[in-house]
Amino acid sequence: MDIERLRTDTPGCAKVAHLNNAGAALPPRPVIEAVNEHFALESTIGGYEAAERNEAAVQHFYDAVARLIGAHADEIAYVENATRAWDMAFYSIPFAEGDRILTTTTEYSSSAIAYQQVAAAKGVKVDAIPDEADGTLSLDALEAELVKGDVRLVSLNHIPTHNGLITPAAGVGRLCRQHGVLYLLDACQSVGQLAIDVGEIGCDMLSGTGRKYLRGPRGTGFLYVRRDILRTLVPPFLDLQAATWHVPNSFEMRDDAQRFETWERYVAGQIGLGVAAAYAADLGMTDIETRVIGLAAKLREELAARPGVTVLDKGPRPSGIVTFSVDGHDPAAIQAAARERDINVNVTNPLSHGYDLGAPSAAVRASVHYYNTEEELERLLSVLPER
Amino acid sequence: MDIERLRTDTPGCAKVAHLNNAGAALPPRPVIEAVNEHFALESTIGGYEAAERNEAAVQHFYDAVARLIGAHADEIAYVENATRAWDMAFYSIPFAEGDRILTTTTEYSSSAIAYQQVAAAKGVKVDAIPDEADGTLSLDALEAELVKGDVRLVSLNHIPTHNGLITPAAGVGRLCRQHGVLYLLDACQSVGQLAIDVGEIGCDMLSGTGRKYLRGPRGTGFLYVRRDILRTLVPPFLDLQAATWHVPNSFEMRDDAQRFETWERYVAGQIGLGVAAAYAADLGMTDIETRVIGLAAKLREELAARPGVTVLDKGPRPSGIVTFSVDGHDPAAIQAAARERDINVNVTNPLSHGYDLGAPSAAVRASVHYYNTEEELERLLSVLPER
Repeated sequence: MDIERLRTDTPGCAKVAHLNNAGAALPPRPVIEAVNEHFALESTIGGYEAAERNEAAVQHFYDAVARLIGAHADEIAYVENATRAWDMAFYSIPFAEGDRILTTTTEYSSSAIAYQQVAAAKGVKVDAIPDEADGTLSLDALEAELVKGDVRLVSLNHIPTHNGLITPAAGVGRLCRQHGVLYLLDACQSVGQLAIDVGEIGCDMLSGTGRKYLRGPRGTGFLYVRRDILRTLVPPFLDLQAATWHVPNSFEMRDDAQRFETWERYVAGQIGLGVAAAYAADLGMTDIETRVIGLAAKLREELAARPGVTVLDKGPRPSGIVTFSVDGHDPAAIQAAARERDINVNVTNPLSHGYDLGAPSAAVRASVHYYNTEEELERLLSVLPER
Repeated sequence: MDIERLRTDTPGCAKVAHLNNAGAALPPRPVIEAVNEHFALESTIGGYEAAERNEAAVQHFYDAVARLIGAHADEIAYVENATRAWDMAFYSIPFAEGDRILTTTTEYSSSAIAYQQVAAAKGVKVDAIPDEADGTLSLDALEAELVKGDVRLVSLNHIPTHNGLITPAAGVGRLCRQHGVLYLLDACQSVGQLAIDVGEIGCDMLSGTGRKYLRGPRGTGFLYVRRDILRTLVPPFLDLQAATWHVPNSFEMRDDAQRFETWERYVAGQIGLGVAAAYAADLGMTDIETRVIGLAAKLREELAARPGVTVLDKGPRPSGIVTFSVDGHDPAAIQAAARERDINVNVTNPLSHGYDLGAPSAAVRASVHYYNTEEELERLLSVLPER
């Protein structure tokens, strides 16, 4: 990878050492230009007229996202953000009383709240599968729960927001297939970071966002739903995009993934997200993954060598999300000191992962992307407080 | 109103005669700049960092929309578009079997599909209230249905998409208050076009979009929910913005309208929509309404005077949406011919208003805004086919 060229292609790199890619990454120039050009066209000739003229770019989104994750274009829906994408999948599942949902200890709180809402409304039970000693979800424990029966859904995140872990998503997929259980993967932090193939993972549904590792615009997301199960899901909302009205008293849902869409949308964002997906695929997701994981490993190594610093990440091969604490120093103060020097890091929030009772109350989170450099990692290290 | 100044403030006015404001209006320069500036800031310093720096502009949205419609800021939610805003209200209502929904003959098909989904799932009945002879919803017929009982919700649009009508929204509000029935108003076409005061109308919930008469960005919308009823509604989706998780097995919803929001969003759009709402309020909604209704009346008058042209609009005081047909000419061909001359009109789609069985299969729709001129109306008239 020609990092210098990729940085030149990213206006933000000239301004900040951006180590908050798990929050929102810096978009590359082609994404910025695609969004700006479409918005300018809307402002100049009208919104509907612009969408008509750029119809090919709007449709390109489906192909580009499908190519990125090894899906078919008719399995992809454009949704407003990863939360809504996940919602449209999760709340589409016709749960019955007594059904069980299995998740991980690292599950994101928005999903946990949704589980509790459905649990309260429909008498569904929710269990967080225990971890192995290294913090990874235990496939043995998962299998034991699947064998017990009544599991309707396994729903978990691919990369949690707070501890560097990569969930063994394909291992989970194999078990779900064996037991005939639906599998929803929240790939919010992994799309654009890891090479993802939905066939290899074996998930039925996968939700992603534009703004994080994909480097797309904020306010964009997508949902993948496997063809074979698509028609068993009933979206919680329907509009004239998702269904056709048979006047007066019936309707028919689309039989592709656009049944999870709303007709009205942020069109410039859809075009920009398509450009972002193609940009990542063109660079090569395997190369991106190698670079991200490698930079993060290097940062962990240097952090671990510093007196008073504790690296908090888990799993045998941690992701691009690096979390750590510095003895006697408040993570928020470290974030603020870094910001003063144009270095962006974040602080993990314990409210975002309530099942993970062993997690620290807060930590500094430095999430690297391929366009980061070793020099930027050094800059971060140089502003950390001494022990 | 200084129309010349307002047109200079609207880059699109130099390019097109935009008579498709019921589709999406042309944004004014302050909206365009607010969106562009925030998106550029996100691209330069990072998405979260930009939102933090522009926090005041993000919050301004709530105040600006509240001021525009006579609500309190805590009664306003930012939602991705008008459909999702409406969905979040409608699907939050805890319907029981036997409940009735009353609507109008002119209801938008997306809403009708949602009614049928809930009707099928929960045993709810849906009735479209008949019209008066002039096409206006009959308040007498509405009252007669309310008296029959079991009505849980009156849900209708303020201005339909296809026939120029303005629904007597305040009259409906008085009847709903008298009968203690929930009232949801789809103000998609009226916000930014008519002076709206939710207190005067007496609605419990009102949904609006950014892109139409408000002149905001596409991919933005809002929901108003009256304080008194807010806590009786259970949003169909919850995330960490809408609710707080009490680990592990319970949660608590927010007690303001942000319980209908998602945390992740198109932030630049939220800022832009706030600017658009303030821009409209500063101009004065009464002046805007007078100008829009006046221009539309003038266009109807000239259309009606032409041989072979039939004006199709209804009601005693039609809105800024003008629909008409020309004997022997396909509306789509008229739209295309106008487009050739940089005049934007639209064609009504019978699929969008299936209850309105008397409506023509298609018509030309010319929807005017205050920034349109009489000269632009003449341009449209000049490209219409002779009889």
